[in-house]
Amino acid sequence: MTPIRPTIPLDAPGKHHGFLRLPHSRNDSAWGSVMIPITVIRGAEGPTALLTGGNHGDEYEGPVALQQLAWELEPGDVTGRVIILPFMNAPAIRAGTRVSPVDGVNMNRCFPGRADGSVTQKIAHYIDSELVPLADIVLDYHSGGKTLDFLPYAAAHYLDDADQQAACTAAMRAFGAPWSMMMREIDAVGMFDTAVEGRGKTFVTTELGGGGTVTAVSARIAHRGALNLLRHAGILAGSVEGADDSRMLSMPDDDCFHFATGDGMIQPLADLGDMVAEGQPLARIWPVDRTGVAPVTVTAQRGGLVAARHFPGLVQTGDCLAVIADPG
Amino acid sequence: MTPIRPTIPLDAPGKHHGFLRLPHSRNDSAWGSVMIPITVIRGAEGPTALLTGGNHGDEYEGPVALQQLAWELEPGDVTGRVIILPFMNAPAIRAGTRVSPVDGVNMNRCFPGRADGSVTQKIAHYIDSELVPLADIVLDYHSGGKTLDFLPYAAAHYLDDADQQAACTAAMRAFGAPWSMMMREIDAVGMFDTAVEGRGKTFVTTELGGGGTVTAVSARIAHRGALNLLRHAGILAGSVEGADDSRMLSMPDDDCFHFATGDGMIQPLADLGDMVAEGQPLARIWPVDRTGVAPVTVTAQRGGLVAARHFPGLVQTGDCLAVIADPG
Amino acid sequence: MTPIRPTIPLDAPGKHHGFLRLPHSRNDSAWGSVMIPITVIRGAEGPTALLTGGNHGDEYEGPVALQQLAWELEPGDVTGRVIILPFMNAPAIRAGTRVSPVDGVNMNRCFPGRADGSVTQKIAHYIDSELVPLADIVLDYHSGGKTLDFLPYAAAHYLDDADQQAACTAAMRAFGAPWSMMMREIDAVGMFDTAVEGRGKTFVTTELGGGGTVTAVSARIAHRGALNLLRHAGILAGSVEGADDSRMLSMPDDDCFHFATGDGMIQPLADLGDMVAEGQPLARIWPVDRTGVAPVTVTAQRGGLVAARHFPGLVQTGDCLAVIADPG
Amino acid sequence: MTPIRPTIPLDAPGKHHGFLRLPHSRNDSAWGSVMIPITVIRGAEGPTALLTGGNHGDEYEGPVALQQLAWELEPGDVTGRVIILPFMNAPAIRAGTRVSPVDGVNMNRCFPGRADGSVTQKIAHYIDSELVPLADIVLDYHSGGKTLDFLPYAAAHYLDDADQQAACTAAMRAFGAPWSMMMREIDAVGMFDTAVEGRGKTFVTTELGGGGTVTAVSARIAHRGALNLLRHAGILAGSVEGADDSRMLSMPDDDCFHFATGDGMIQPLADLGDMVAEGQPLARIWPVDRTGVAPVTVTAQRGGLVAARHFPGLVQTGDCLAVIADPG
Amino acid sequence: MTPIRPTIPLDAPGKHHGFLRLPHSRNDSAWGSVMIPITVIRGAEGPTALLTGGNHGDEYEGPVALQQLAWELEPGDVTGRVIILPFMNAPAIRAGTRVSPVDGVNMNRCFPGRADGSVTQKIAHYIDSELVPLADIVLDYHSGGKTLDFLPYAAAHYLDDADQQAACTAAMRAFGAPWSMMMREIDAVGMFDTAVEGRGKTFVTTELGGGGTVTAVSARIAHRGALNLLRHAGILAGSVEGADDSRMLSMPDDDCFHFATGDGMIQPLADLGDMVAEGQPLARIWPVDRTGVAPVTVTAQRGGLVAARHFPGLVQTGDCLAVIADPG
Amino acid sequence: MTPIRPTIPLDAPGKHHGFLRLPHSRNDSAWGSVMIPITVIRGAEGPTALLTGGNHGDEYEGPVALQQLAWELEPGDVTGRVIILPFMNAPAIRAGTRVSPVDGVNMNRCFPGRADGSVTQKIAHYIDSELVPLADIVLDYHSGGKTLDFLPYAAAHYLDDADQQAACTAAMRAFGAPWSMMMREIDAVGMFDTAVEGRGKTFVTTELGGGGTVTAVSARIAHRGALNLLRHAGILAGSVEGADDSRMLSMPDDDCFHFATGDGMIQPLADLGDMVAEGQPLARIWPVDRTGVAPVTVTAQRGGLVAARHFPGLVQTGDCLAVIADPG
Repeated sequence: MTPIRPTIPLDAPGKHHGFLRLPHSRNDSAWGSVMIPITVIRGAEGPTALLTGGNHGDEYEGPVALQQLAWELEPGDVTGRVIILPFMNAPAIRAGTRVSPVDGVNMNRCFPGRADGSVTQKIAHYIDSELVPLADIVLDYHSGGKTLDFLPYAAAHYLDDADQQAACTAAMRAFGAPWSMMMREIDAVGMFDTAVEGRGKTFVTTELGGGGTVTAVSARIAHRGALNLLRHAGILAGSVEGADDSRMLSMPDDDCFHFATGDGMIQPLADLGDMVAEGQPLARIWPVDRTGVAPVTVTAQRGGLVAARHFPGLVQTGDCLAVIADPG
Repeated sequence: MTPIRPTIPLDAPGKHHGFLRLPHSRNDSAWGSVMIPITVIRGAEGPTALLTGGNHGDEYEGPVALQQLAWELEPGDVTGRVIILPFMNAPAIRAGTRVSPVDGVNMNRCFPGRADGSVTQKIAHYIDSELVPLADIVLDYHSGGKTLDFLPYAAAHYLDDADQQAACTAAMRAFGAPWSMMMREIDAVGMFDTAVEGRGKTFVTTELGGGGTVTAVSARIAHRGALNLLRHAGILAGSVEGADDSRMLSMPDDDCFHFATGDGMIQPLADLGDMVAEGQPLARIWPVDRTGVAPVTVTAQRGGLVAARHFPGLVQTGDCLAVIADPG
Repeated sequence: MTPIRPTIPLDAPGKHHGFLRLPHSRNDSAWGSVMIPITVIRGAEGPTALLTGGNHGDEYEGPVALQQLAWELEPGDVTGRVIILPFMNAPAIRAGTRVSPVDGVNMNRCFPGRADGSVTQKIAHYIDSELVPLADIVLDYHSGGKTLDFLPYAAAHYLDDADQQAACTAAMRAFGAPWSMMMREIDAVGMFDTAVEGRGKTFVTTELGGGGTVTAVSARIAHRGALNLLRHAGILAGSVEGADDSRMLSMPDDDCFHFATGDGMIQPLADLGDMVAEGQPLARIWPVDRTGVAPVTVTAQRGGLVAARHFPGLVQTGDCLAVIADPG
Repeated sequence: MTPIRPTIPLDAPGKHHGFLRLPHSRNDSAWGSVMIPITVIRGAEGPTALLTGGNHGDEYEGPVALQQLAWELEPGDVTGRVIILPFMNAPAIRAGTRVSPVDGVNMNRCFPGRADGSVTQKIAHYIDSELVPLADIVLDYHSGGKTLDFLPYAAAHYLDDADQQAACTAAMRAFGAPWSMMMREIDAVGMFDTAVEGRGKTFVTTELGGGGTVTAVSARIAHRGALNLLRHAGILAGSVEGADDSRMLSMPDDDCFHFATGDGMIQPLADLGDMVAEGQPLARIWPVDRTGVAPVTVTAQRGGLVAARHFPGLVQTGDCLAVIADPG
Repeated sequence: MTPIRPTIPLDAPGKHHGFLRLPHSRNDSAWGSVMIPITVIRGAEGPTALLTGGNHGDEYEGPVALQQLAWELEPGDVTGRVIILPFMNAPAIRAGTRVSPVDGVNMNRCFPGRADGSVTQKIAHYIDSELVPLADIVLDYHSGGKTLDFLPYAAAHYLDDADQQAACTAAMRAFGAPWSMMMREIDAVGMFDTAVEGRGKTFVTTELGGGGTVTAVSARIAHRGALNLLRHAGILAGSVEGADDSRMLSMPDDDCFHFATGDGMIQPLADLGDMVAEGQPLARIWPVDRTGVAPVTVTAQRGGLVAARHFPGLVQTGDCLAVIADPG
Repeated sequence: MTPIRPTIPLDAPGKHHGFLRLPHSRNDSAWGSVMIPITVIRGAEGPTALLTGGNHGDEYEGPVALQQLAWELEPGDVTGRVIILPFMNAPAIRAGTRVSPVDGVNMNRCFPGRADGSVTQKIAHYIDSELVPLADIVLDYHSGGKTLDFLPYAAAHYLDDADQQAACTAAMRAFGAPWSMMMREIDAVGMFDTAVEGRGKTFVTTELGGGGTVTAVSARIAHRGALNLLRHAGILAGSVEGADDSRMLSMPDDDCFHFATGDGMIQPLADLGDMVAEGQPLARIWPVDRTGVAPVTVTAQRGGLVAARHFPGLVQTGDCLAVIADPG
């Protein structure tokens, strides 16, 4: 049984700000807690949307948009209920790190979690077993974080259930990001996506930039996307804005992923959004410990659009250097 | 007397790749060394350019451009001498950190260094006392690093000596970055800039992006800028390319700098290159430990162009959040 | 099967000092061991008492009293057997930390442990499966450690088995601490208490102060308590001293626990042992990063006696700030 | 010249909350700052008091009292000026450590500081050269911090200038702590006390408890002491309260200090406030790695009152274990 | 199912150098990988040998010999196939530590591993389930690492299957180390040895020195041993060299192992290869915190040859100080 | 003025064990001390020898020999005085590291130290200014520590004062190590050697092995060497033993030192004591991150005897790989 207790009611009318409280004994507080902020806004009868950010602690578009929504949405605006978790992996958010500093766990590979597991596993377990069942539609925000950079897109998965896939795809399009991505997940074990889809829910995820920063542009995409999704779900009034401008992308297979074949410093030869041809050089990798040595060159395994890239200047062998997607 | 010894001659004709070797006893190597890579390319009689990068260890445009130049420039191309140090603060470059992991020193605040100081001070001392005197013109590359982001510009300082200032300004313009910045340095103590200018040299510095990454675009700016500078100095043949497209900027006073007035997560409301009016909101700062709290808003103290900004999603009170420059 | 081996016999007459040896390969000793000190004193035929301290590594009253007993008790004094483990979580004791520095595990939430688990789990497994079965009565010392402070009390649990509860309560009273506490454990999973009680043993635990220190007064309480308990069990001759002066307390429900609702610096408004009324302010929490901000005030959810409090000057949201118990 | 700038005026009428801003480039913020909170309250013409806390980052009575004063004192209450620095060593306060986590410097041994030194040295230099000269009377709060515990006292030094000593002693008595201590400082190099006294100011310091905690009692002593001092100085109206109850103490020589002669776990045999005779055992030190070993016993070198003691349960050879003072 | 993919074919003719790629998301590379180098050399039809090093990351004789073999062996030399893994625990090798810096796991106690476990468990699982089944004979190199030192020997285990034991013993003798050791493994749970033997393979392991270094002599033993083993298996042509000079040793029981009974600094009284008598002093242990204290002396529990010893100058209670083996 | 105080008299007859006490405030003990163990043995009138070890904290032959001497020498054996400091850099010895964990200072490059410096500088200052002046002859033990390995030798320097050099050389020969080394120190700034010689004292230093371990053989060399030196000085009775067997070596110039030209794993091709010819390969350096790459080979710059080598299996560019000395 989960040790987590919410400090606010999850089903009361009105707007409540509080925490999911997880007791956690640590050297600097024997009777301490991990506190995961939560806001619930309930208006007239209607569906429930669960909006989550901070699955990884160094991705900020979602948390920023959700803090703003938690601040500005009022029960009178809402037909149904909006549950907002801007900081799912609260310890990682405080530390500004992808994985939890408490247990080193990558939250998005530990679902459905464990009630008697580590801190991250306990949070995942609570969200999966207590919050997801309350929802009709789930939006989980991601960005590239400190080490990846993405073209801004909302995404849906190819699913076995055609109706569910259609619902997810429609919601993805409603989000109205500049790009919309259909993905066939190869290694879906442990993902929040998989857990939510497994419960038959409509699910949308995003990648809205990267580098561990937010821009005014990416913040607006994130905020408008949530409003659009809530309008699409009938929870907010009004019609979806700007969704028609979104361009389609797909990542059909493993060849999309390009890995560094050496350690060193990256000299990119193509940027996000550039079209590249098969065999075209994507980047050079230079050593940082000496001069006068030829760089390693990484070339495109396939043609397409550069949709993601390694962000930091330094790279290690085996890091994903770039992803080339199919446009259209 | 400096304990540093170069492993190659600094004045021999031809092209030599080697190291500045600084003995450094450490727990994992009693008789170890800090090795700072250096390339010297000497052709026909002519002036000497000193090209430096890696003053801060998380800024990559300069190191990438200089690795490429050290690889591709040949003595037959050179009238004079090019001394290339892509990684001045070699331990910081290996660690990917702004300041040295060995002694915690910010190299660009420790010039002219000390022969009997800490590792970073010894390197600074050697560069200032042994390499700068050999040079007629010095180019020191900077970018924003992991925590700042800049419009790409080359820069020169207002100097007491009008002739020297004119020489520096001309070299800055020759570099041909998208932007060119005139700066009046308020707190110049310890900077490499100050040390080089104090020796009467022509000096250009840059800020070519930030976030601790490089793009294909910023790498091309950096590479072309060095070629342009060497052409301008008469060391390479050919004429300067694209310098006329550079737009002028200036940072006239302290009011340009905007500081965070709270800890939290940034929601930018204006991006690099945006024009803002005095009093316009630049960013909101949201807490990361709870919802339902109003954000802190930082507004523009002056009108102008957003020329620099804090890069990471999290900010602390007193961090520089944005810099607003005067265009034209 | 446990990898732990005692270096002394557990059942031989006389007095033996030794170790529980747990092989533990680590970077600084490939064939190293964790050594848990143990003393066994066996005299004439009689019952066995197991006395344990150092379950948490920053609580010292128990370890001090047990070192003294291991030093001064002689087989001729003992009718039966006394098994003394002053430092159950030996690596935590050496480090002066609540949880083990080896695996980060809180020993008192990992019972009954695992023979193939981490270091702390292996120790817990050995104690539970090898030592507890030898005992008729078990005394486990606790104090507040570095982050909590308690009124000095011995404690017993409400148990389903009325006879066992009566035996535990009698032993608690015999200990003769200034206070005696009846507790209904809400979340008893993984506690040593639960494991011992589950084996039908008479069990007493304590909280004898806190802050990670010992005073002359608290050391005397701890020492006399063990002697009293051994007298009560018939293992030492003589009668129990001072038990009649102990005052009764109880923690009946979750409302006893008061949590910090903000991060900052604590200004207590009531001390340990003070009686407070419902609604009375218990503490203010001030920020440490600025002045001129109103403090957060935490008020009593119920009336009663302040029986425990957060010890360090700094507190985080969700830390237990104070516990209010029922007197009498 | 100091790089520190206050964000508020130091001499304007009214009440201002702000910061001393010290630019500090660090890996996680290239253009970051250390921000030291400051409040200035100026009313009618009169003398200036400088009230400081957080010289060490783990001592809380002063910071708590000063936060409260900064919050509750109004210009209309003040004849003169009150300058309040609750957190002199701001980075240490945030970290909860005695010395600064930035440079490892003990602030109270680095006065008068250096304008071009490390972070702590720069803060000390600013306080000594910019703030102390503004003051007529200076109160610097100390407590034992996480590793010492003291009887609560205010203190003054024996000084060469009899008038200055009389002024300091009068102010110490006005503070009205339970104890008042006259001290002959043996090793005064680098102390804030020495710097302030060297400028001819009236100076009072305190030790108001310890262990890195605050109690309701010690918080009241600290708060009343500051009010008393301001009344004594004529800055607040009203008369000093409770000063007659303070008992006198003195530490006349080096024999007062008792050091641990072994590593281990302390069993105190006398508590703070106990009178001890020469030769009386003060504490036993037990090993934590084995049982069956005799403890080391530390005995009193002189008779007197136990006025201070080592707080943590563990001690190392050479740590100060106890201080015995002369009463009366 | 294992997440590990080889970047080269394991069964193609010729010589291929590549990696086992294990996706591993970490804070400094969200889509990073652990890359375990592998070389496969396949010639004419014949048996398969699996040669492994770097099971512990601070043992170098095996990795050096295997790097040389991977470099110099050609398909034309090979009848069958040679699979070379010089760095099984690649993250530990990079860090120079016995156990993995990623998860703290000792690889040689985690076989058969887990496909969904930690990084080290995943690598062990892949080797056990994917590579070992391909092999007829397996050689796993060990040395003492940074904390142990051994007489150089190859080793085989007493096994229940007499034929398998005979095959292993013959292979051990063919290796031709200066010493050959028969071992009865007491605690074999989790060892690679156990996993390989459990699959019925011919298995040889070694201990070829220690201290975390390699000598010219030990490197030659390691290199010749692998060539001998491949000749013995019929994979390389030619006859085994120097195997007749190997002297036999055995470790028959637990009495061979001598443990430190105190913490301190070791003064050895016998060296590797010395014969000692029962009761003879092996070493003194001196304190490092004071002078004038008698050392602890450790004496031989049995006569024999000193075959292994603790390497670092400092030792802790419970560390294995020396192993005395039976010669002949 | 030094803050260090000895706890024993330095000139009283008899044998005294104690400490040099250096007050050092740290986070875990506000009033703590660094305690440097010292033994003084004074007998009949005669000269004073100062015997020191632990200048680097990972070199053990000296500390072991000096602990034994401090234990076994009696005033009746001594004509004059023997001052023994087995652990000059006491914090480094406790940590087992070359440089001090307190301030990162290499003690043997910080003489003559500073009374107001860091901990290591204060210790160096006390030894240089208070102890060396008391001595007629000084023996400072070194070994290779964890990262170097040496042929065992005693050493003396070429000095300007021929008489002093003769005295030092005679003392070096009297020590009777297997090898005796004459050295011309190139970079002598900050060494203890230089400080002692600068005071006109007879000075002997040693290198007695390495790797951070001690063997029975090296311990005997160290112990006999000190006895020989004391006999040579007339402080102990009896004649020097075995000094005639010592073979002479010299390191005449910088060409003796061979540095690694790449990072990686060392395959030595010659061992300590081997004679090598100019141009002969000394070692190969292999990468640890991939197979199939040619090693870097380091060759001898000069012929001679391998007298020292890098010890750990891993090496970095610029580390000293080997030292070739002139025999005879």
